[in-house]
Amino acid sequence: MQHLKHCQGLASVFLIRSQSSRISKSIAPSLSVWDAHLSSRWRSTGGHGRQRYFSDRVPKLRFALAGLLAGTGAVLAYRLHQGKVEWAASSAQLPVTQTSALPVYTLEEVTKHCSLDNGVWVTYKGEVYDITAFVAMHPGGDKILLAAGGSLEPYWALYAVHEQDHVLEILSEYKIGVLNTESIKKQESVNALDPYSAEPTRHPALQINSLKPFNAEPPSSILSDNYITPSVIFFKRNHLPVPRVDPETYRLEIEGLPGGVASLTLNELKSCFPKHTITATLQCAGNRRSEMNTVKQVKGLNWGIAAISNATWSGALLRDVLVHYGFGPEVAAKAQHVQFEGLDKDVTGTAYGASIPLNKAVSEEGDVLLAYEMNGEDLPPDHGYPVRVVVPGIVGARNVKWLGKIVVSEEESKSHWQQNDYKGFSPGTDWDTVDFKSAPAIQELPIQSAITHPAEGTSVDANDGEVTVKGYAWSGGGREVVRVDVSIDGGKTWHVAKLRTGDKGQQAPPPPPGKAWAWKLWEIDVPLPHSAQELEIVCKAVDSSYNMQPDTVAPIWNLRGVLSNAWHRVKVKVNEDL
Amino acid sequence: MQHLKHCQGLASVFLIRSQSSRISKSIAPSLSVWDAHLSSRWRSTGGHGRQRYFSDRVPKLRFALAGLLAGTGAVLAYRLHQGKVEWAASSAQLPVTQTSALPVYTLEEVTKHCSLDNGVWVTYKGEVYDITAFVAMHPGGDKILLAAGGSLEPYWALYAVHEQDHVLEILSEYKIGVLNTESIKKQESVNALDPYSAEPTRHPALQINSLKPFNAEPPSSILSDNYITPSVIFFKRNHLPVPRVDPETYRLEIEGLPGGVASLTLNELKSCFPKHTITATLQCAGNRRSEMNTVKQVKGLNWGIAAISNATWSGALLRDVLVHYGFGPEVAAKAQHVQFEGLDKDVTGTAYGASIPLNKAVSEEGDVLLAYEMNGEDLPPDHGYPVRVVVPGIVGARNVKWLGKIVVSEEESKSHWQQNDYKGFSPGTDWDTVDFKSAPAIQELPIQSAITHPAEGTSVDANDGEVTVKGYAWSGGGREVVRVDVSIDGGKTWHVAKLRTGDKGQQAPPPPPGKAWAWKLWEIDVPLPHSAQELEIVCKAVDSSYNMQPDTVAPIWNLRGVLSNAWHRVKVKVNEDL
Repeated sequence: MQHLKHCQGLASVFLIRSQSSRISKSIAPSLSVWDAHLSSRWRSTGGHGRQRYFSDRVPKLRFALAGLLAGTGAVLAYRLHQGKVEWAASSAQLPVTQTSALPVYTLEEVTKHCSLDNGVWVTYKGEVYDITAFVAMHPGGDKILLAAGGSLEPYWALYAVHEQDHVLEILSEYKIGVLNTESIKKQESVNALDPYSAEPTRHPALQINSLKPFNAEPPSSILSDNYITPSVIFFKRNHLPVPRVDPETYRLEIEGLPGGVASLTLNELKSCFPKHTITATLQCAGNRRSEMNTVKQVKGLNWGIAAISNATWSGALLRDVLVHYGFGPEVAAKAQHVQFEGLDKDVTGTAYGASIPLNKAVSEEGDVLLAYEMNGEDLPPDHGYPVRVVVPGIVGARNVKWLGKIVVSEEESKSHWQQNDYKGFSPGTDWDTVDFKSAPAIQELPIQSAITHPAEGTSVDANDGEVTVKGYAWSGGGREVVRVDVSIDGGKTWHVAKLRTGDKGQQAPPPPPGKAWAWKLWEIDVPLPHSAQELEIVCKAVDSSYNMQPDTVAPIWNLRGVLSNAWHRVKVKVNEDL
Repeated sequence: MQHLKHCQGLASVFLIRSQSSRISKSIAPSLSVWDAHLSSRWRSTGGHGRQRYFSDRVPKLRFALAGLLAGTGAVLAYRLHQGKVEWAASSAQLPVTQTSALPVYTLEEVTKHCSLDNGVWVTYKGEVYDITAFVAMHPGGDKILLAAGGSLEPYWALYAVHEQDHVLEILSEYKIGVLNTESIKKQESVNALDPYSAEPTRHPALQINSLKPFNAEPPSSILSDNYITPSVIFFKRNHLPVPRVDPETYRLEIEGLPGGVASLTLNELKSCFPKHTITATLQCAGNRRSEMNTVKQVKGLNWGIAAISNATWSGALLRDVLVHYGFGPEVAAKAQHVQFEGLDKDVTGTAYGASIPLNKAVSEEGDVLLAYEMNGEDLPPDHGYPVRVVVPGIVGARNVKWLGKIVVSEEESKSHWQQNDYKGFSPGTDWDTVDFKSAPAIQELPIQSAITHPAEGTSVDANDGEVTVKGYAWSGGGREVVRVDVSIDGGKTWHVAKLRTGDKGQQAPPPPPGKAWAWKLWEIDVPLPHSAQELEIVCKAVDSSYNMQPDTVAPIWNLRGVLSNAWHRVKVKVNEDL
């Protein structure tokens, strides 16, 4: 695995890392913990694994700058919509406010004001605000400090509540100056030889597990704030460089059906087949792998609890496309799998590949999409632009991105990832004894849940009399989550959490049986026991087949660190002095 | 719940109970433990819960006797087939050998010889054998003592290996006499007022949890000896008295389809629809409930690990029948459930009822049967003669027996068992707080496995160097068991067991994806650690969705004691003196 070399230009990266370590723990305990986690990750990637705030895609950026300097798009480009912010364009807006008479600051100056000790400065639409005095009044609590020393836009985009006039009015009270345009030039220069040189820009909040290929998850503290995860913080799991696909020349090939190889343009895919929309959660097989690493080192990215996200996906039904090109009983009598091949390739030209069982692909109940939209927009580059497979209820690894080819076949995909990677083994199996042929490729995932609030190591106030616990729960195969049990005494006694299937006040109706593709978010206020000084908060979910999570990690440990779904446990202190 | 009154005529019941308590533990440890379990159950049912060996159905028996005395059927009736023995007919054969010059014994005399101390006598085809000297040589080990003091036929019927000439030759060496015909008259007189008076005869090996209604499971020690469980020891789970249904007047009503109520004769069901055969495991929701009782008392029958069995079932596909009577998209647009009503009724006339989701009932993948055969023969009375529903992958309670009515409906069955019984709850929910509407009716069951050998409390020989562990594993919803992990150190280290999908040497091909309706049997020889004095043997299974069993019972405890699928644990001693 390759890592991006340290780069002086990554201002907003450093500010997140450095500022939060200076935040008073008494004021921002949750964030400090998050930061400790982040710092630990930082170390694990050799200190170079942080996110580039500004695009390293110079041509696109220059184009945007030119357009904006000509005075076009100034208003439209900054109208915030949940999950719709383009970071490059956002940065490119800076010159618009350059005409202000207020002091002009550089990004470096802003970056220094990234803590309550040094003052909390943020930028918004090219203007600089000192919000130190506002932090304690922020209705969203400490989360505002995530943006300290950098831009507000990426965070506001996650919380649509900010898109209101009175919020902007409040903000305007704290304006102290404007940014100059020079900061943009400090971005990393593009290394034309790097296969990762054309990677898209990413949200600065993402916690990076690997930069090349890019693998990152949102902070768990914000994961369950939105029922539909904004695309920008939806976990990214790339196996290879992100391919840049020209939608005009894009062709989707289909093999294994009567009449030979079919070829489909993007426009044909969009116009010839009914558009179908589903809400589906995707989860990486390695979600929560870090907990397995605490038992014994495994091979794989050190995912926390947030390699899982939920989105709406639109596209053509794979079933419709296969039937259109001749799938029928004759094919079904022979074929057993549908293989997918991505346009992402390694240096030898080998593409990412995976397959799913035929009956999932062609079933009317399967809802398998050739998706071209995520959350109502074109797929972002990191999520497979222009077309990806979305196989609801199935492990992320089979939801092939940048889809280039579909093969209806008697055989599974021969790819490394299907044959010798995403499979589960006994805790007693090690790299000397493992026989990958002995285990089935992971398809449906087991029942899963985790606690997103409170964070490990934080404190709760004994005077509150109760602790609010929040999290997510999901199961594979379309099995609906029917209950989440929460304990604050390590699993001795249990309380039943409230589940929701949408953002608060926007509950969706229950899914049809076997088609619960989306997660549920849950929440509960548990009364604090009188004498407790520490709580071991635990959650476990139950799905519609009454599958339950195992109690502990060690007995499900496996050498690849996949399928980590033991009870999630979080320890917090009970603070009586607050 | 009612219990059968104590009856002097139940000779073979008492012999099993009394003989095994006298078996030397050093010779028959496994059986002694089984007996302890059995005795404990005996006590729990007030001492009256044992099985009647001979039929209490006098009219049928007299008819059989008359026929046999006329010299007909003598050879055919005693040809043993696995799972095909008729006990009443078997007993009725006694007079055929009455002409022997050997001593004539009564059943009471045979009954006294039910242990190694008092001699081990058995009967076979009306002849009496003293096999005391043979017990140590029996290839099947101690299991032969199950028949001590009674008839061999019920046990031989479970093990087809006995149906060979050389086995009969060995047996003939031990012949000491013949039985008289009088014993038969000592059977319990029929109480015409008892709603349970017409109950069928049952296999004496069954461990009875409740006699009225009849609920019993086979000894766990023999459960996994056959891949296809012989019908006679297939666990019985009746909610009400067994109805006696005349096949000539039987009608199956179908409601909720265009054209009003349809009515179908047994002959029409058999002749108008293709006969479809599947092998499917049924499991009671309360299987392994006894383990939950060790945590805290639950409400329900105290099932051990054998309220699960596997059989082949033949009948018409429910889908075919519904489509024949008008099921189509118009119905599907409204209906969501298919309700079943049994012909078994309580004193108020209320029938047993249940329902399943419509998509399971009508899916081509669902394999739901209106079954009229079990293991190649007419359904036995205890299993729903003449027609029952078999819903593979779904909890036993929805596999309605003695099926009288099918209703395609917008609603679930309103029956007590669907609405207020077979549902799972949090460990924190008690009878004061339970809201049955808050939980879904159990349909698919979660991953399950248990150890059938060795038995709890027995000993293994340190000199063997290893311990052989055997058991079963199954998962609901057609999810295939892909692995069983076995530990002999309480779960610290794990070994992978060998799975089989048939009797040894008769492995079936793997099931199609999502249609693994039948259990897998498993076995493993685990090396004994040098210094171990006691082993805690544990098993846990994994299904094709990589669902795993929870580690412990307490966190899945629920007030009805259903869904008990924690790791199964068995403690045995390591004996170095043997």
